[in-house]
Amino acid sequence: MGRQIQFWFEFASTYSYLSAMRIERAAAAKGVVVEWQPFLLGPIFAEQGWDNSPFNIYPAKGRYMWRDMERLCTERGLPFARPARFPQNGLKAARLVLAIEAPDQKAAFVRAIYSAEFGSGRDISDESVLAECMQSANLPIEMLDKASDPNIKSALIEQVAMAKSHDIFGAPSFLVGEELFWGDDRLDAAISYAAQI
Amino acid sequence: MGRQIQFWFEFASTYSYLSAMRIERAAAAKGVVVEWQPFLLGPIFAEQGWDNSPFNIYPAKGRYMWRDMERLCTERGLPFARPARFPQNGLKAARLVLAIEAPDQKAAFVRAIYSAEFGSGRDISDESVLAECMQSANLPIEMLDKASDPNIKSALIEQVAMAKSHDIFGAPSFLVGEELFWGDDRLDAAISYAAQI
Repeated sequence: MGRQIQFWFEFASTYSYLSAMRIERAAAAKGVVVEWQPFLLGPIFAEQGWDNSPFNIYPAKGRYMWRDMERLCTERGLPFARPARFPQNGLKAARLVLAIEAPDQKAAFVRAIYSAEFGSGRDISDESVLAECMQSANLPIEMLDKASDPNIKSALIEQVAMAKSHDIFGAPSFLVGEELFWGDDRLDAAISYAAQI
Repeated sequence: MGRQIQFWFEFASTYSYLSAMRIERAAAAKGVVVEWQPFLLGPIFAEQGWDNSPFNIYPAKGRYMWRDMERLCTERGLPFARPARFPQNGLKAARLVLAIEAPDQKAAFVRAIYSAEFGSGRDISDESVLAECMQSANLPIEMLDKASDPNIKSALIEQVAMAKSHDIFGAPSFLVGEELFWGDDRLDAAISYAAQI
């Protein structure tokens, strides 16, 4: 099996951007392999009575999050642009991740999507943005059709069910065996844990 | 004025325990002075529609928090005991902090309360626990009467109003000038920021 870390991410999640941009290098440095696990927070938030991002429902928390993201991106030398609409619809992008087979292309596509969204403030539900991200990961544009493939749709629903079964309630989340770590602030701890067991 | 960091804490907050136990040493190492700012999250949560801790309202988040606390306390060599009741009523303890004048005694009392609550799982609304904490901070037991002093009661209400005016929505929070940092995970960043300006 080897040393593995499951990275559970939601494309609408700001803090998942931070983790997506560094997890591969940080994990590789400790000999840990990343498993990319896209999922949707919408159905999980809905069960908590939320029909929107908690950062919109609770305005003070939202104002803080944007400022915190700005500070962290500056600190890490990451581009940051607050998208006009938040949260964005990452449904198609999440499905496409499941359609990609090679881990390095999966990783490249995920980073391209997050960079478009939070690095450039673009709309990731837009087909042309998805197409550019596909190309930047050296994937054929025809793969975009996979976003409406019934098997892929089912696979994403299954991802949400798996996330729930692991008690995941937010993103990014990291799972090492049954040990759950939540938030970009726990990424290093999660990798260290994965490297030890 | 010098380099200062305001530490906004709520005695019911688990993560505030982590910060309370290390903030003085960490701040002093960078020449930063800590201002102890007790407040109550209850009125702030009530405005968000919560009548309980979010860790009780959202069970998956709660289960995660207890496990996270357990891991962090182990890592830091801090005792940890989950209290039978959560959240606890820290009203009297918060008032007493405001009644104490000397900063080092304030700090000692705050640490004693958090240690009793999350290090030993004791009930911090209990007068005998409060009395022990007073004694451990070299304060006279008669000071317990201050918990019902009208001026002190007003001062705590004022603290909550100040917290709101600074857009504080959770604990622990750290304020350096008007820059807000939330969570024990941001304590080091807040201290570094205070040391630079």
